[in-house]
Formats: sequence, C-alpha cells, structure tokens
Amino acid sequence: MTVIVQKYGGTSVGSVERIQAVAERICRYRDSGTQVLAVVSAMSGETNRLESLGRSVAGKPLAREMDVLLASGEQVTIALLAMALNERGCRARSYLGDQICIRTDGNFGRARIKDIDTEALRADLAEGITPVIAGFQGVDADGNLNTLGRGGSDTTAVAIAAAVGVDECQICTDVDGVYTADPRVVDDARRLQQITFEEMLELASLGSKVLHPRSVEFAGKYRVPLRVLSSFEEGPGTLITSEKTTMEQPIVSGIAYARDEAKITMSGVPDIPGIASKILGPVSRAPIEVDMIVQNTGADGLTDFTFTVKRSDHDRALELLTAVQQSIGARELAGDNKIAKISVVGVGMRSHAGVATRMFDALAAENINILMISTSEIKISVVVAERYLELAVRCIHSEFDLGADIVAEETA
Amino acid sequence: MTVIVQKYGGTSVGSVERIQAVAERICRYRDSGTQVLAVVSAMSGETNRLESLGRSVAGKPLAREMDVLLASGEQVTIALLAMALNERGCRARSYLGDQICIRTDGNFGRARIKDIDTEALRADLAEGITPVIAGFQGVDADGNLNTLGRGGSDTTAVAIAAAVGVDECQICTDVDGVYTADPRVVDDARRLQQITFEEMLELASLGSKVLHPRSVEFAGKYRVPLRVLSSFEEGPGTLITSEKTTMEQPIVSGIAYARDEAKITMSGVPDIPGIASKILGPVSRAPIEVDMIVQNTGADGLTDFTFTVKRSDHDRALELLTAVQQSIGARELAGDNKIAKISVVGVGMRSHAGVATRMFDALAAENINILMISTSEIKISVVVAERYLELAVRCIHSEFDLGADIVAEETA
Repeated sequence: MTVIVQKYGGTSVGSVERIQAVAERICRYRDSGTQVLAVVSAMSGETNRLESLGRSVAGKPLAREMDVLLASGEQVTIALLAMALNERGCRARSYLGDQICIRTDGNFGRARIKDIDTEALRADLAEGITPVIAGFQGVDADGNLNTLGRGGSDTTAVAIAAAVGVDECQICTDVDGVYTADPRVVDDARRLQQITFEEMLELASLGSKVLHPRSVEFAGKYRVPLRVLSSFEEGPGTLITSEKTTMEQPIVSGIAYARDEAKITMSGVPDIPGIASKILGPVSRAPIEVDMIVQNTGADGLTDFTFTVKRSDHDRALELLTAVQQSIGARELAGDNKIAKISVVGVGMRSHAGVATRMFDALAAENINILMISTSEIKISVVVAERYLELAVRCIHSEFDLGADIVAEETA
Repeated sequence: MTVIVQKYGGTSVGSVERIQAVAERICRYRDSGTQVLAVVSAMSGETNRLESLGRSVAGKPLAREMDVLLASGEQVTIALLAMALNERGCRARSYLGDQICIRTDGNFGRARIKDIDTEALRADLAEGITPVIAGFQGVDADGNLNTLGRGGSDTTAVAIAAAVGVDECQICTDVDGVYTADPRVVDDARRLQQITFEEMLELASLGSKVLHPRSVEFAGKYRVPLRVLSSFEEGPGTLITSEKTTMEQPIVSGIAYARDEAKITMSGVPDIPGIASKILGPVSRAPIEVDMIVQNTGADGLTDFTFTVKRSDHDRALELLTAVQQSIGARELAGDNKIAKISVVGVGMRSHAGVATRMFDALAAENINILMISTSEIKISVVVAERYLELAVRCIHSEFDLGADIVAEETA
C-alpha cells in the first residue's frame, strides 16, 4: 500500500465546507489504496487573529506565551478534520505536536524540529487509522510549546514524511503547482512537471510563495519526494526531487520576483578592511534583514556599497546609516524604495554558459536599466526599477522559451 | 507568605480588557503579600463557539476529538493572561493540563482528575513566578486530552489547591457571593458570610449556579477552604468551609430553585417488587436524568409513582413510558411540564424539628399547592406549579427570616 503525507494549509481548511472537502479527498485516496498522514495548519486568518489578540493584551508579548497562543489554532483544525473523517467512516485520530513528541530546539516562534517519535503513527497506519497531525508546533526538552514560524506546517509535513519514510510528501495548496513564472504576470507561464530541490529552494527563497524554503531544504536533505498540488482540483502538480528524470534539462526552470524591495547605496566609502561590517553591523543588529549585497571597488581608493532590504525597513535603515556615514566619512548616502528583484533559476545554468548575457541582452532590448546584479551557481538576480517589473519578467520568460511545451518533460 | 488559588471563569476573562483587569488584580494581591496560582476558563462564548463548530463538521463528533477542540479555548486564555501579567512586571508562566500532568481517567467530555504533578508549580512559587493554569482539561494514561465537562475549571482550581496545599481556593465570578436566595426573585436576599460544604453542595446541585457541585464535593473531601467572590469588585464573598465559625447557626442557610422541571406520574401501578426499575429503567437507559422520585403506596395493592426530569426531556420520557404503561398494566400516565422545584437547605435542620412544617404552612398561607415533597438530612424540596415559583421562594425566605441581619454571623 502507498503511504503519503498530505499537508493542507490555512486556505484549504479555511471553513467547515473546505474541511469537509479535504476529508472527502482523503477518503478517496484511501479507497484507491493510498494511506494518508494528514498535516494541517490553522484555519486561514486564525493565526493572524490570535497574534493580534496577543498584541492587544501586551505591548511586548512574551515569546513563550505567544507560542502557546498560536499553537491553539492548529489544535482546532486537527480536531475538526479528525471528526469529519470519522463521520465518513474513515477512522482518524488527531495528534498535537507533543503527542507524537515533535521535539524542537526551544527557540520560541522559530523553532527547528530535532526529532519525532513515529511509534503511534506507525501503529495507526498498521490499523488503517488516518493520523491527523498539527503542523507548526513542537515541544522542547523542558516541555514548553514551540512554534516553527510562518510556513512551519510545510516543515512539519516534510519532517513527518522523513521520519515515517513515506512514498511522497504532498503540499496541497491553493495553486496547482510551481510555474515558470507568476501566471498573473506572464500569460503563457507553464506549470512545471518537475523541478530540483536546489531550484525550488532558490525559487522559494526568492518570493515564489508556494513553499516554505526550510521545508524544501529539509526535503532535499532527507531525500523526501515533495509534490506541490492543488487542494481543490485533481492534477499531478509539480514534483520536487533530487534529479530530474527528463532527458532534456531546460537551461532555466523558472523566474521569481520580489516586489517590496528597497536599496540603500553608500558611495565614496574609504576602501579599507572592515568597512562592510561597519556599514552592515548596525543594520543587522536593528535587526533588519539584508538580502543582496554588492560592492564595487573604484580606482581612487573609494568604493560604492549597495544592499537591499524589505521596503518596510527602508526608512529605518537609511536613518541608521546617516550616523555611520559621518563616522566613516563616506561621500554620499542614498536610498531607493521603488525597486524590484527578478531572478532566473535553473540547474541547467551549470553546463550552459552565457545565460547571464542572454538575460541582460533581453532586458537591454526593452531599455530596462539594471541597477544591481548578483549571481550564484544556479541563479541570477537583477534589481530594476519597480515600474519595469512585469515587462522584465515577460521578456526574460520569452527569451528562455519557458512558455513552449517541452515534450520530453511533459511526457516524463 | 499567603498562597491562594484564584479561578477566573469565562465572563471574568471574556475580553482583552477583562483579562487586563484580572492581571491588575493578581498584581495587587502579589504586592500585598499574597501569591496567586491562577486557573482560568475559556473566554466567554468560546466553548460554545468551538462546540458548534465541531457539530457543524460532524453530526456525531467523536468524543476524543471534541475534547481536543474544546481544550484549545483555555489554551488561548492562559497565554493571554500570562502575557498580561509579564507585561506588568509580574513574572508568570502558563501551563496546559498535560504540562503539569493533570492526570484524568480517560472519560472524554466528563473526565475526573486522578492526580496532579505539583513540582513545576512549587518551583515557580519559590521563584516568585505566578503559574497560570488551564482549567477544564487533563490528559489520560494514553496521552489523550480529556475535558472535565461544563464547570470543570472550578474542579481544576480545587484540585490544584488541594495538591499544592494552599491557604484558600477562590472562585472569582460575576456574583459577589452565595445568597440566601436568588436576589432577582427576593428583594431582601442576603449574601452569606459562611456556608458549609454540605449546604453548598445541596445548593449547587439544586440549581444555584454559582459553583459546580463536583468542585464543592472535592473541596469538602480535601478540606480546601473555598471562597466565592466577585472578579470585578472587592469584597469578602462567601466562605465555604467544614464548620461554621459563627456562634449561632441559622436553621436554614439558603433557598434554591430550579425552574425548567417536568414531572411524570404513573397511577394505578401494581405494587409488586421490581416495579420501580420497570418504570425507571427505560428512562435511565435513554439516557434521561431523573431527579426526584416519589412513590406512595395505596390500600388497594396499587400505587402511584411520580418522578421529575428536565423540562426538555418531558416529551421523550412520556413517550417511552407509554409502552411501559401497557406492559405493566398501569391505569394512567400523565405528564406536567409547568412545574418548578424549591429547596431549603441548612445544617441547622439537623437539630431543629419542625422545619418542614413551617415551610408547608408558609406555602399553605399563600394558597400554594404542593405537588411533590422530598427530604434529606439538610434539605427539603417541594414541587409546585411554575407560576407560584417567585411567590413561594419569597414567602419561605420571609418565614425563616433570611433577610434579617444575623449579627453573630456578620461579625464573624
């Protein structure tokens, strides 16, 4: 018998009707010979509701107690789904994180999973019982509840899949797979049949909000076949796996973008050792998350230093750096909060030279000025003015023929 | 240092503002040298909301899963109250039932507490930390969540008080104590300074909704001084204790009533052994809860058999007994769903004869017909037509001078 993990996110269990639809779906899988371990999130909106309830009680809510508060959301969903399954004659049993010893590291609000006791789950499967597991939560060595941070239910699903050793881990969501680009921006964006963990990790980190990056990392590490598919419609979705089984690998698999970005540039900075940490230190300690960092060395012993942050952090970062500018004697400080980042991702880049050039040429042909460039082995990211975002994504998508049917892949 | 348990019910923690008021109050106790272990219910309305959510998902929701669902309500409150306390500089830590091993017997929805591990609570008290404990829940030997049934948080509070060995267990609620009668019915109803466990148990069982009967039983068994007082106003409330410390014991302590009652009478029943169980058996197995049972033996070998049930069970009980009537050959079957029960309670009755006579005379003076009578050592209950309820309560209250100040008690 095939055994799979299915994770249902907040929208998929967002109402009584949707929970019932999920129960129907799990029953159909069982009837066709596939046993499901279900992992669920809180009903959509619930985590936000609880969080703002906490913030209305305390200006600085204790992290330990915020985790106790938030973890109650998943508790509601597991009970409701288990009820709905039993009602349909599909025996099911709910599990909170601590009931299957999802052991976490004690970092409230962003805990990592260390271990899971699969004994009860294995016993349930042997008896034909469907376990329904609360995502997003675990318990630390001192018995405190921990949550894994937003998107943590994906990680729970992969961890359960790895620990039990199932055939596949399915992330059931409100989109039917991973696309070559955002279909709202690119008309002929195409659903990918397969993608590698590395590619998915880059896409997930780059703002393609389908999967939480940590869950992809986890799946790659433990070689858990991961599939993204729709909760609402039937379909194969996108399989995320170690190696593509297709004969032909496309050079570029997909394009991701992030809109809410800002960049800060400090120009005419003395080019001496330790200057980067003098600039970024105060920002990181704020703490403001820094994404891309680019430094160019000039000929006059001065350098220009640019980095990107979330748009909401732009003003604060600029303010922090005003003091830094004076202390290090930099010539100029400037911010730009109307930028966007576009990235092309593909393991095929490794063996194909000139991908960057093709990308830059395509942008130049549309008169789109590139403000920053950053590359890794399977990814090229550029920053452009936000108004060019859609045009840039479309012209790159077209340049790499991502809309065309790739016969070898589609029939794989 | 004095250590007390304070239980706050749903109304007392029904909003962000009320939770903050409770936090303020606990801080004041601490500042005046009293350490509090707080036990809380779900925010008012929350348990009902969760229960109906469960019933909308499944026609017959599994009891195990209903407990998982309902227990999430208290989880929210402990987190919020612990946050509010910490925000005010009062170090606090929340505990779910399983985090202090509130071991229960596995009866979903109506579990009983078997044991509590007080180690963490004692350690907190030693460090000056206020534990905030989820009422209403525990965990059974197999690790399943259990709830204690409605009003179960009172029982949790008393169990914690008994296990830790505190000076007093305070039930903080929306009334400021236990009254000689319902103040909405009797104008000069008086708050009692003290009442015995036995008396409170009778009053609690008889529809005076201040305390859950099981918690009173528990407090009596473990000799935990119990106090009912207002969550919102300062005041001594009512102390429930083993022996009254007052010199003079009033004959009657209080009057309780239950409005939503019905009675079923089967007349002309052959007076032979086993007949009671033939009549009540089908009713109990329905299951319908039977309250008062009265049987009078007549001279002709026939007897009349009357019992009371909740008004909502009247029609079903009558239907069940139609079949019984034919099988045992009883002459007549009749129901009355417009009745009410009134009870006077007092340990003083033990040593004072004639209490029943005074009560019956008082009713007769107002031309109120008594339909049923049932007595115990410290209680006399009568059933009257519902329309006489208020008049009956008032005339009995007056007959026993319950409105008058009792100097010895008030100065106790």
